[in-house]
Amino acid sequence: MKNLIILGSTGSIGVNALKIVEANRDRFNVVALGAKASVKILAQQIEIFCPKLVSVADRATATELRKLCRRRVKVVTGVKGAIECATDPDGDLVLSAMVGAVGLEPTMAAIIAGKDIALANKETLVVAGELVMKEARRKRVKIIPVDSEHSAIFQAMRGEKKKSVRRLIVTASGGPFLRSSKKDLKKVTVKSALNHPNWSMGPKISIDSATMMNKGLEVIEARWLFNLKPELIDVLVHPQSIIHSMVEFTDTSVIAQLGAPDMRGPISFALNYPDRLEKLDAPRLDLAKIGLLNFEEPDLKKFPALRMAYESLARGGSAPATLNAANEVAVESFLNGRIAFTSIPVVVEKTVQRVDGGSVTTIEDALSIDRTAREIAREVVAGPVARPQRLTLTL
Amino acid sequence: MKNLIILGSTGSIGVNALKIVEANRDRFNVVALGAKASVKILAQQIEIFCPKLVSVADRATATELRKLCRRRVKVVTGVKGAIECATDPDGDLVLSAMVGAVGLEPTMAAIIAGKDIALANKETLVVAGELVMKEARRKRVKIIPVDSEHSAIFQAMRGEKKKSVRRLIVTASGGPFLRSSKKDLKKVTVKSALNHPNWSMGPKISIDSATMMNKGLEVIEARWLFNLKPELIDVLVHPQSIIHSMVEFTDTSVIAQLGAPDMRGPISFALNYPDRLEKLDAPRLDLAKIGLLNFEEPDLKKFPALRMAYESLARGGSAPATLNAANEVAVESFLNGRIAFTSIPVVVEKTVQRVDGGSVTTIEDALSIDRTAREIAREVVAGPVARPQRLTLTL
Repeated sequence: MKNLIILGSTGSIGVNALKIVEANRDRFNVVALGAKASVKILAQQIEIFCPKLVSVADRATATELRKLCRRRVKVVTGVKGAIECATDPDGDLVLSAMVGAVGLEPTMAAIIAGKDIALANKETLVVAGELVMKEARRKRVKIIPVDSEHSAIFQAMRGEKKKSVRRLIVTASGGPFLRSSKKDLKKVTVKSALNHPNWSMGPKISIDSATMMNKGLEVIEARWLFNLKPELIDVLVHPQSIIHSMVEFTDTSVIAQLGAPDMRGPISFALNYPDRLEKLDAPRLDLAKIGLLNFEEPDLKKFPALRMAYESLARGGSAPATLNAANEVAVESFLNGRIAFTSIPVVVEKTVQRVDGGSVTTIEDALSIDRTAREIAREVVAGPVARPQRLTLTL
Repeated sequence: MKNLIILGSTGSIGVNALKIVEANRDRFNVVALGAKASVKILAQQIEIFCPKLVSVADRATATELRKLCRRRVKVVTGVKGAIECATDPDGDLVLSAMVGAVGLEPTMAAIIAGKDIALANKETLVVAGELVMKEARRKRVKIIPVDSEHSAIFQAMRGEKKKSVRRLIVTASGGPFLRSSKKDLKKVTVKSALNHPNWSMGPKISIDSATMMNKGLEVIEARWLFNLKPELIDVLVHPQSIIHSMVEFTDTSVIAQLGAPDMRGPISFALNYPDRLEKLDAPRLDLAKIGLLNFEEPDLKKFPALRMAYESLARGGSAPATLNAANEVAVESFLNGRIAFTSIPVVVEKTVQRVDGGSVTTIEDALSIDRTAREIAREVVAGPVARPQRLTLTL
């Protein structure tokens, strides 16, 4: 029996994780749940999984939750509450699936408390990857990725030695605008950008996929998660998203992990690691039905986000954290109709140029850089960048 | 330092293995070499690798070899000689790369002597798979496949538990006649059948690839090598031969091994197992350059050999050995211009129907069935089967 702590239980990853838990009650027990503010879903989850501890964003949400909840459960709030959940002594594995930099502190606290991590929170590695992985190695804590690409690489490396790895090949769908011209990108609407060809995801990650910043952030994550130099991490466009990623070894052999584009696979792998679930309610891969798989090099001119991600790794220190914060502000501004789609990388680049890069030696450093970068990004958004064309404002 | 015994050293696998040995002298030492009759190549190999023991087919060949050979080396002959090589106390790993049923006895002797096997000889598993693998388990001997498909499955299973395997997906190029109609197959010449689209191989295996019997034999091998029921082994046509095979796990995840179609990859993996070579002089995979990969279900009507292989497994006992022997005679008859391409499966089917299936409890049983099946197959070839059309006799 594995005792789970799920942070971000009402999001897409959390909800799917709990579906897996429900189908495998003999394997998993839920100790604690954490959510931001979706109290209705959270109340239902409490009813079904009976955690002893629950965290929400703030006191007002806690009060609301208590009204909805029949079951007796301790409710804690804020970052302090999330950390209390993450470090509960009864938990074996923390599924870190909060969205944004707010996931960093609880995840780090869980690592320091010696808990294994199923990691879905990108920011943990993008903002403070070096720091987090150093602590994980020191505590001999396993960090099992939930992202489909990193899960694929993690699975491809099973039973292999790190010194045998020649390079990682992170696959990218190319997003909804793979075939669009640079000129077409200028007219992109929020609606079309949210329409991802393969994966059904939240708005932030869908936009990141459309700009390919998502892939850039994944390269940064992979750099720290697998402790490999950025030049050993390549991106390959593969529109069908069937090969989730690959590892090339020194003897020319390439190991790939494939599957239908469905998050339940990687989630179940991370939850049940090191074993595989005997049964999973998720679609099986049928390659004869799919028929063909395509591959091409990414177009770094059309999608500058990918180039910027590599540059931030080359610069090092706080540069990836700055990139991430600026991107969050830029995407939010695009979703709110304040800037054009093509302005997202412009805002990021301008912000990165204005923020002084320093080293990140503590989590506080990382969070401080995150705040500074956001402020500057907001100034950049308010300045001279392309605005959406009137006709294309469809949201 | 690993001490190697290479049986079949002058064939395609043997020659490539020795190239790898030559590039990695710090890792490999050659104890013994075995070949049939290619004395010129063998004499060169003796000069370069200085084995202490060499086996050839017969005394006449041995005399010829001694004339060519400046170096002092013990030369032994026949099956007894091959067994002496295979069991030499100084050897750690036997590369079993002889062609045909003649490889069975030396391979079994090596297993009994407790030596790990890099297995390229198909017949060992097709003719006596159950027997051989039982002995290997008893002696805790590792059987590492050299065939690209089985090597792929072996690599995909690294670090995984057998109970997590849902099925194997053996990929097949489909051979040179994948797009030919049944009518076209009637006109197939030896020359066109030898022209494999992806792999450069010997004539027997090229014809087997054209009839898809090669894939059938591989399914039989996989059945014993991985100890999985035949219904858990699927064949998928993949014309580019880039994905060498796959394993689907119970949690819907699929692990595949990919590479350029080049035997040096699987050979080096088997020789250096469990480690991977740090460097290999073989082409690297470039998926962006390849562009696309296709997949389709095999056409069992056009290629009945595959169906017959599954049927032989269902019948059990000596049926796969009979299938293999009949196929060898049929292919030889096709290559000699005695029967038409479409008669190959007909000869096999008729032979299988005429040979009484018995159990195989000793290697002698297997070899006896092999002999009987060959005799009957020769009778079938002499009987009423389709002959090549005059115009198409190009060899």
